Amino acid sequence: MAERKGNLMTMREDIRVVDATIRDGGLCNDFHFTDEFVRELYKTNVQSGVDYMEFGYKASKRLFDVNDYGKWKFCDEESIRSIVGENVSDMKLCVMADVGRTDFRQDFLPKKDSVIDLVRVACYIHQIPAALEMIEYLHELGYETSCNIMAISQASTEQIDAALEMLIQSNVDIIYLVDSFGTMYPENAGKLAQKYLAYAEKGNKKVGVHCHNNQALAFANTIECMSYGVSYVDATAMGMGRGAGNCQMENMLGFLKNPKYNLYSLLRFIEHYMLPLKASGVQWGYDLQYLFTGLLNQHPRAAIAFTKEHRTDYVNFYKQLLED
Amino acid sequence: MAERKGNLMTMREDIRVVDATIRDGGLCNDFHFTDEFVRELYKTNVQSGVDYMEFGYKASKRLFDVNDYGKWKFCDEESIRSIVGENVSDMKLCVMADVGRTDFRQDFLPKKDSVIDLVRVACYIHQIPAALEMIEYLHELGYETSCNIMAISQASTEQIDAALEMLIQSNVDIIYLVDSFGTMYPENAGKLAQKYLAYAEKGNKKVGVHCHNNQALAFANTIECMSYGVSYVDATAMGMGRGAGNCQMENMLGFLKNPKYNLYSLLRFIEHYMLPLKASGVQWGYDLQYLFTGLLNQHPRAAIAFTKEHRTDYVNFYKQLLED
Repeated sequence: MAERKGNLMTMREDIRVVDATIRDGGLCNDFHFTDEFVRELYKTNVQSGVDYMEFGYKASKRLFDVNDYGKWKFCDEESIRSIVGENVSDMKLCVMADVGRTDFRQDFLPKKDSVIDLVRVACYIHQIPAALEMIEYLHELGYETSCNIMAISQASTEQIDAALEMLIQSNVDIIYLVDSFGTMYPENAGKLAQKYLAYAEKGNKKVGVHCHNNQALAFANTIECMSYGVSYVDATAMGMGRGAGNCQMENMLGFLKNPKYNLYSLLRFIEHYMLPLKASGVQWGYDLQYLFTGLLNQHPRAAIAFTKEHRTDYVNFYKQLLED
Repeated sequence: MAERKGNLMTMREDIRVVDATIRDGGLCNDFHFTDEFVRELYKTNVQSGVDYMEFGYKASKRLFDVNDYGKWKFCDEESIRSIVGENVSDMKLCVMADVGRTDFRQDFLPKKDSVIDLVRVACYIHQIPAALEMIEYLHELGYETSCNIMAISQASTEQIDAALEMLIQSNVDIIYLVDSFGTMYPENAGKLAQKYLAYAEKGNKKVGVHCHNNQALAFANTIECMSYGVSYVDATAMGMGRGAGNCQMENMLGFLKNPKYNLYSLLRFIEHYMLPLKASGVQWGYDLQYLFTGLLNQHPRAAIAFTKEHRTDYVNFYKQLLED
């Protein structure tokens, strides 16, 4: 088993904090953020020392109707530039592209013409070959790339080993451990992180982690993975993200000891932008229905529907999940 | 460093789940629970396989006016018996007594005349001698006893070592690690638990853990401590407890693999009793103001006041805490 890296008092220069509020949070409101919201979050992230800000998805306009979603579902170059200009900050920008749901050969400019720095390629474990095709193409265009293997709690050890072996042979820069269903405990997450890190070291890759808060463990799992050497850590303002949401950025910035990270700007943003968003009815965050799907290693869609219907019949719902 | 005990798939016969809803939760509503609420919780705990239920405090009626609090602040024998009768269940009953705030020589019956099984003696680290006086007295009366050293995050290593050495020489049964301010990370909590366990093994004692959820880590810290051998674990329904609250019982029962633990009764109780309690305005649970006092290793009282005033000026509040 790997040793822990550093300790709770030291700072690690290799840490990269990734704000995924617009991208994962966009799943809660179909990406209908105002420009003001996104611009203020961008400024906040720059002031807070956040290393990467994810603007949304590069979704296929053939598969998704642009009238059904806010523009951050598609992240056109001009949409991002209308917020960041040339992005003269030290913060890097990223977008996510889902295997099978993006027109990547058409929708990505060469890196020299784009303000996007990193493209995060999201896939399920059986889609690794398709992800690698995208990764090599985007690498050729000049982007940093990551491979975010979703729903890893449903993959077998053999699949995970095979996927990691393929990835370390590729040009991908970062391999992400993604607990989409929020089903892991710190002990699981830490062990799996150690596996990712062992492969990554052989292939000279970085490892990232993206957690969901179904069991109220997103922050705990994230810092557990970090303690073994995971360096890319996803978080969102107030944990905004699909279902139970993600690791809370405010907890993460409070935890990190590097003085480049600053909590005040984020608190101001939360007060002025996140609280009104929540008050407007956009829903996310830890609740019992998400605990259940997390416990059962299931997709949160049933829990999201339960939430939307304002149901509280937990016993019925839990029984129903066990019958499925 | 100690090895972890068991793994995530096994069950440990030594685990004892302690429901502290009425006692720690009572700090949120001055112990004004209805008899129906307490009786239904009792039944729920019995059905759920909970090992101990804490009914409240044995507070001094000379120091506290009985008209200011619900009866669970005082836990008279007849109050408890009106709920449990002779307590013919397998579940044990406990109460808490704070050093310096209890008339222990007057208010405890001999164990043979009481339905109480365990008395949890709560103290700050400088009160260990006073706690030991109570523990020996209560042990003589025939009770199981625990020593719950509060606010351990503000004690020095030397103090902790001295306290643990004194406790293992005593007749106490269980030594509790209490993160009153919710300031610990799993890494801290796990290391401290290992220290407690090393002493406890020498003295043939058990170790318990009681966490607060300021940094959204109460459940994570609890299971981290368990993994090293802590066997008494405190939890409350929906995490009800002072300030940010405690480890959520629903998460704990979902986590435990022993088939004696059952989630359904608790879910029914939450639906029918906890949700209305929360809707009535009783406040607890993770929120930013508690994150701050947790981060700063401070008592939550300022955050509790901030919550009561429905304030959301996080920046001002955080600055204020840093000035104190």
